[in-house]
Amino acid sequence: MPSALEFELAHCSIARALELVGEKWTLLVLRDAFNGVRRFDDLHRRIGAPRQVLSARLGRLVEVGLLRRVPYRDPGQRTRYEYRLTESGLDLYPILVSLLTWGDRHRPNQDGPAVELTHRGCGEPIELALRCAAGHDVGSAREVHPRPGPGAVRITPTG
Amino acid sequence: MPSALEFELAHCSIARALELVGEKWTLLVLRDAFNGVRRFDDLHRRIGAPRQVLSARLGRLVEVGLLRRVPYRDPGQRTRYEYRLTESGLDLYPILVSLLTWGDRHRPNQDGPAVELTHRGCGEPIELALRCAAGHDVGSAREVHPRPGPGAVRITPTG
Repeated sequence: MPSALEFELAHCSIARALELVGEKWTLLVLRDAFNGVRRFDDLHRRIGAPRQVLSARLGRLVEVGLLRRVPYRDPGQRTRYEYRLTESGLDLYPILVSLLTWGDRHRPNQDGPAVELTHRGCGEPIELALRCAAGHDVGSAREVHPRPGPGAVRITPTG
Repeated sequence: MPSALEFELAHCSIARALELVGEKWTLLVLRDAFNGVRRFDDLHRRIGAPRQVLSARLGRLVEVGLLRRVPYRDPGQRTRYEYRLTESGLDLYPILVSLLTWGDRHRPNQDGPAVELTHRGCGEPIELALRCAAGHDVGSAREVHPRPGPGAVRITPTG
């Protein structure tokens, strides 16, 4: 029996993160926020979600503190709001980079990637790397040992 | 206007990855697969998805090549199947690690993390790091410049 079966998952951080972002439209909204797309009409045109769905997703992202609403006003128009990433929203970036990296590799586009991420400082391509605190590169999931942390809750055997 | 608005998103690798894994139950199934949980009844008990939903998600993950079905037989029982990650499934690992890392940081569990990832070789904790091909650490999304790649499709202005 894998040792994971001995523990409850109620406190799993993956599940908690997914409660907030585990929905396709939500992640596409965040993708565009990272690309600098901030206005409702732009988001609506690019993402293709129904307006009411998009509106609900944006409202929820503001409510949970991943986006903030910032007023703006175009000449001759009424005040509107755009959506910007908060600090905890910015920290979602590795999730999007890991989705992008996997998609580029395993579901590649015939003409090559539609977007490339480069380091603003030096222009070199960016990658996501697993490594350990001792500085070793960790090549794959096979080199990772998940162990119960202080918040792990052992399942009480029944029957 | 952010330059991203000039390009179509039809070929975005994030959207393609989400078509496969952008659903809460699917990611929870994959999480458990990485934890070594492989059997339908174990997955069902841990994840809490209705049996039919779980069965459909597992079937889809096999169909798209992220999981494979492997027969096993307990003494006195009929042959059953367990689900194991394929190579392209194993490559999803950074997606789960990035969700875990974000959840641990921004939605922490009162008692500490339920699971800790350590390097099998040396026992040190594992982290996901953004870095560039020149070897620089990339501290946040603000240091990343997304640029159109060879597969980018410029939007034809209308009107």
